[in-house]
Amino acid sequence: MNNVTINAREKINDAIEAALINEDINQFRDEFLKIHPYDQSEFFEAQTEEVRYLIYSYLSPEEMADVIEHVEREKQSDFIVEMNPTYAAQVLANMATDDAVDLLNDLDKNKVASYLTIMPEDEADEIKDLLHYEEKTAGSIMTTEFVVVNTHMTVKEAMRHLRKAAPDAETIYYIYVVNDDQQLIGVISLRDLIIAEGDLTIDEVVNRQIVSVSVGDDQEDIARMMRDYDFLALPVVDFQNHLLGIITVDDIMDVMDEEASDDYSKLAGVDVDDVDQNPITAAKKRLPWLIILLILGLFTASIIARFEETLEQVALLAIFIPLIAGMAGNTGTQSLAVAVRGIATGEFQKHGIVKTIMRESITGMITGITCGLAIWLIIFIWQGTMFLGFLVGLSIAITLFVATISGALVPLLMNRLNIDPAVASGPFITTINDIISITIYFGMATMFMQFLL
Amino acid sequence: MNNVTINAREKINDAIEAALINEDINQFRDEFLKIHPYDQSEFFEAQTEEVRYLIYSYLSPEEMADVIEHVEREKQSDFIVEMNPTYAAQVLANMATDDAVDLLNDLDKNKVASYLTIMPEDEADEIKDLLHYEEKTAGSIMTTEFVVVNTHMTVKEAMRHLRKAAPDAETIYYIYVVNDDQQLIGVISLRDLIIAEGDLTIDEVVNRQIVSVSVGDDQEDIARMMRDYDFLALPVVDFQNHLLGIITVDDIMDVMDEEASDDYSKLAGVDVDDVDQNPITAAKKRLPWLIILLILGLFTASIIARFEETLEQVALLAIFIPLIAGMAGNTGTQSLAVAVRGIATGEFQKHGIVKTIMRESITGMITGITCGLAIWLIIFIWQGTMFLGFLVGLSIAITLFVATISGALVPLLMNRLNIDPAVASGPFITTINDIISITIYFGMATMFMQFLL
Repeated sequence: MNNVTINAREKINDAIEAALINEDINQFRDEFLKIHPYDQSEFFEAQTEEVRYLIYSYLSPEEMADVIEHVEREKQSDFIVEMNPTYAAQVLANMATDDAVDLLNDLDKNKVASYLTIMPEDEADEIKDLLHYEEKTAGSIMTTEFVVVNTHMTVKEAMRHLRKAAPDAETIYYIYVVNDDQQLIGVISLRDLIIAEGDLTIDEVVNRQIVSVSVGDDQEDIARMMRDYDFLALPVVDFQNHLLGIITVDDIMDVMDEEASDDYSKLAGVDVDDVDQNPITAAKKRLPWLIILLILGLFTASIIARFEETLEQVALLAIFIPLIAGMAGNTGTQSLAVAVRGIATGEFQKHGIVKTIMRESITGMITGITCGLAIWLIIFIWQGTMFLGFLVGLSIAITLFVATISGALVPLLMNRLNIDPAVASGPFITTINDIISITIYFGMATMFMQFLL
Repeated sequence: MNNVTINAREKINDAIEAALINEDINQFRDEFLKIHPYDQSEFFEAQTEEVRYLIYSYLSPEEMADVIEHVEREKQSDFIVEMNPTYAAQVLANMATDDAVDLLNDLDKNKVASYLTIMPEDEADEIKDLLHYEEKTAGSIMTTEFVVVNTHMTVKEAMRHLRKAAPDAETIYYIYVVNDDQQLIGVISLRDLIIAEGDLTIDEVVNRQIVSVSVGDDQEDIARMMRDYDFLALPVVDFQNHLLGIITVDDIMDVMDEEASDDYSKLAGVDVDDVDQNPITAAKKRLPWLIILLILGLFTASIIARFEETLEQVALLAIFIPLIAGMAGNTGTQSLAVAVRGIATGEFQKHGIVKTIMRESITGMITGITCGLAIWLIIFIWQGTMFLGFLVGLSIAITLFVATISGALVPLLMNRLNIDPAVASGPFITTINDIISITIYFGMATMFMQFLL
């Protein structure tokens, strides 16, 4: 950020704090309402409970709604709960409907019901309509505050309607056009509306090539569409093409962020958004994966235990266990990550499973043979034994080939079965490939024992 | 996407293809120009070279610029190169300046120079101005096509200016306000401009609380700011606050996508965007990491080799190697991912290094003790030996503790040294933790050898 802006902001923050200390409501309002709602929210979050109560008494519910909208999602409900219920209901009523719904989803049902009862009826109805859409669908992230005009209106009438609707609308840059049955038939950008002649009817200027999404569509697909088409908003319709709401680009940015951190979390086997938590909560979140992996690791151990006799004869075999298992894990994670990403961006669907697996097989063969030859040479130089190097090299080659395929195959099959492929996460694939690679290595060692002794 | 829309699009696509087969330029233009540029680009990309030549001859450079802008970044330059140079230069001149610059950055310098020579001078100058900004900074993603007004103008004059400037501007929803020295002093949203009285001067209605970024700022920081503040565009200034350009939300969505796939790639140790490549290129991209890990794996092997004597006495020790190394790797990746993400979202900077490491230490201690006790119990039941279980359990406990800290410490230190923390990627941390865990395990086994025999 610009330095000039940062210095200016610090000065303003000091002024706001001074106003709160002096309990000077006018000075507080003067300074506080000047800054951007995001900065307001940052300031607000940093205050103690006592100061927050003061702020509630200094700001109208409308002004407070702006602040709460910009507070981090997880913390919003904590603040709503500490307000007095009438004030809280008014704040909720003044928030963008989609944001209010997200917040209410974090509260228990009794609380929600009581807020909805105190709230003005029309606001409560809008929220109720949205509350029952499934999470992560178009319905759950859309807002009902948009500008809509009828085909019969003239451009001038539409402009007048727009001016009136502007203060409540989430975006005024797209004006949606419906017929008498409330079915979506097109869109006009504000840009086109401004340029158009005032006497024309909307019917004459509407753009009928409109892209819409269905209310049940997945939010990740919608984010991709918005990015590809460079839209600022997308209309949401039901199966009969009735216009239900719109999804705006600011909500989609949050979705993109959420989905990215979701995929990342799954690859790492941990919820990466636990930065803020205390160690006990963090440990609780990480332990389930670790315990599962501990048990899977015991399988690997039990496989080696079967080859105890082989191991007792040639203890040297043990030193390459981490190398072989590690290489299998790493290469599997590589092809898993490519597959998960390919499925997410829709690239894989274009190519088809068979072609993808073919491609991964050849990739695995090339990396396998290269690494296998390299390790053979290195072990020959290091240990001076020709056959041990050959055994490790061959194991690495086969392991890399198999691990590359399994890393791609597992998420592809999961996707086919409509399971989120990202749950075939890094640690899981790593352990599976441990087991495969150890079996190959010790299997071959036992088979060729005569050459090792 | 809506089914209605998909069916309609398929019908249109068929009509376009028919027009191309009949070489009917009018029908082609009628149908093709009706659809969204993104759909145009999808259609265009699916054609053979021969058909593409036909399309070049049917579309004006202006129309073609729209298509090319929506083609995937990596493929854009291939198409430009196959056009005849005069046509290509005109296409480039008609693209949004920032997109044209991105494309030209993929070409060799001679080609760029020749296109710039053929192009209209003012377009060429705009592109040249942007070409020398460093990659991934505000300068490299901004566009110079924005609407700017002076403080002296009236609202009515500004509206008139806006109508004239609209066709070339990348966004008209924010109008930036400068003083006579071209320094940025504020912004008016189109929303506010529409509502304002026509006779007021811009000076009276301008919003002076403007957030701007510096031309050298990192694109990831800008993306975060845009998401937090819900802006549709951000102005870019130099150190004297002169307005240089704007960054629009559609470019930021591409940045978010790029950064997310970048972090994901680093955690997996592979460029996940290689989905489209042939197996040989894919193998070439994956091999460097695998070779590095192979060599790191040899370190692990050499450490075990030092304990060969211990191993020969108790071969049973070998069976828990993958388990211990695997747990160390997994837990290290977990805390690495949390740390990388925490740094990226700015959460960590708030807490400071010491507090974060303290937190991770306690987390590591809790997970370590839990997993250690679990494995002790399991091995006691499975193998019936008290001490082997105790040894493995204690190793796991210490390992998890150390691996958790190192997973967080390495990226935090890297960030301090201004190295991208994400390069301390999953496979790397995994191998480091392999080495640590194996040393702990065998070190303790050797120390307590008398109890094992």
